[in-house]
Amino acid sequence: MTKLTLAEAERILAGTLRRGEQLGKALSVAIVDDGGHLISVKRSDGARALTPSIAIAKAYSAAIMERPTNMLYDWAQSNPGFFAQLSTMASHPIVATEGGVTIKRDGEILGGLGVSGGTPAEDQQACEEVLKELGYELVFGG
Amino acid sequence: MTKLTLAEAERILAGTLRRGEQLGKALSVAIVDDGGHLISVKRSDGARALTPSIAIAKAYSAAIMERPTNMLYDWAQSNPGFFAQLSTMASHPIVATEGGVTIKRDGEILGGLGVSGGTPAEDQQACEEVLKELGYELVFGG
Amino acid sequence: MTKLTLAEAERILAGTLRRGEQLGKALSVAIVDDGGHLISVKRSDGARALTPSIAIAKAYSAAIMERPTNMLYDWAQSNPGFFAQLSTMASHPIVATEGGVTIKRDGEILGGLGVSGGTPAEDQQACEEVLKELGYELVFGG
Amino acid sequence: MTKLTLAEAERILAGTLRRGEQLGKALSVAIVDDGGHLISVKRSDGARALTPSIAIAKAYSAAIMERPTNMLYDWAQSNPGFFAQLSTMASHPIVATEGGVTIKRDGEILGGLGVSGGTPAEDQQACEEVLKELGYELVFGG
Repeated sequence: MTKLTLAEAERILAGTLRRGEQLGKALSVAIVDDGGHLISVKRSDGARALTPSIAIAKAYSAAIMERPTNMLYDWAQSNPGFFAQLSTMASHPIVATEGGVTIKRDGEILGGLGVSGGTPAEDQQACEEVLKELGYELVFGG
Repeated sequence: MTKLTLAEAERILAGTLRRGEQLGKALSVAIVDDGGHLISVKRSDGARALTPSIAIAKAYSAAIMERPTNMLYDWAQSNPGFFAQLSTMASHPIVATEGGVTIKRDGEILGGLGVSGGTPAEDQQACEEVLKELGYELVFGG
Repeated sequence: MTKLTLAEAERILAGTLRRGEQLGKALSVAIVDDGGHLISVKRSDGARALTPSIAIAKAYSAAIMERPTNMLYDWAQSNPGFFAQLSTMASHPIVATEGGVTIKRDGEILGGLGVSGGTPAEDQQACEEVLKELGYELVFGG
Repeated sequence: MTKLTLAEAERILAGTLRRGEQLGKALSVAIVDDGGHLISVKRSDGARALTPSIAIAKAYSAAIMERPTNMLYDWAQSNPGFFAQLSTMASHPIVATEGGVTIKRDGEILGGLGVSGGTPAEDQQACEEVLKELGYELVFGG
């Protein structure tokens, strides 16, 4: 299995932060590996204090659940009690929201990218655009 | 960056408690600094046992989220599960309610003020009036 | 039963902070009522971020355990596992240390005073001196 | 008060990782601001899964306790039960160990730097050397 390197993670985060600058939004961004463990986190100047933790939760959820965090809405809504309990089994909260995307290449899951600080749509778009730009796969089954 | 002093915090709290007396309500009031850490808390005689903790949560939320707690309703309603999880990443519950206002001067966030013990409208009004009276800024972007 | 008023709590805290100034130490001080609920907390300018929480834990422990926190050492040492579990049943950690003293008058327990920010001996001395000066009782049975 | 920028944090982390390379050690490094909130984290390729969390705890402890983590040994040893309870009042564990240093300039505390992955002595040396090289202050009172 290929491991995501720090250099690759930094390239993804740099691209994500650049999108934040274009949007005029101070973002926090995080990347975890395929086991859900942190590789890199950055908080832009002016981003709120909790945004790094939110970005980490999104990245972790996308990596560990092996799908983007916005694909967890249905589960969260169909059984909210059980969904909430998932987080008690995990190292970080499992979140159903925009802004967490699985990092995937050649069918392999390499980790997760999380973004916080913009609107939900902006967080999600920043994730998707940078991963697409750098050649990662964005297609996930239901 | 300026730090809120204990003397300033006490002036704000005294003004807030004075409003409680005028309303005939026993209030609890709390102030945290820009990092969300406690500076001062007071419970009026007769205010209920949990009101200081509620005031602390409101002050903390307003400081850390960098906006009044009544601006968090939309987020809380649009994604209640995710909003609830924010509190697990924080030192105190992140609350979407009236009565927590960010303390801001010259565009800088200095901390948060929380009030509990009145009606939601009274808690909110007490926060806003005292901060306005003492020359703090009350305008926040969406 | 007499209830400790906010005015009395503020008098005790003011006297405690004055001692901190004489010592050249930035203290945090807290008072809880006989049920362990917060009445007043103050962090002096320059006192570290966690000192209010430490002062609250000391005040709470002294009120709820009905004895100064330095009288809890023996228990903590004779059965540390059980002592640690006490905190899981409580609203704040039950701490065995200097700087938490029960507020008592006419044989009645009115609450607890906690001090943090000095050396353990300074925290303890500040508590005892101010309570003695203001006419509270400092004698506790084993 | 000055805020530590992301650019400054990245410069410190880059210098720290460079020292790891010279030592042949895969390090994880973290920086938090003066309120203990994350600014930047990096895990070198090959560094163990928990090392970023360890680095965060060290950085947090040094910032929030306002002194290097190796100055917390005495406290931790003189009252281990109470010291352990500090972590329950904090956002991350308060650790007494090598490898966490307060970031200070012109007498102001700007945040904390944490390093994990080397021997305790290497972690500590990496922190101190990079902060010294970049002009931060390393002197702390007892």
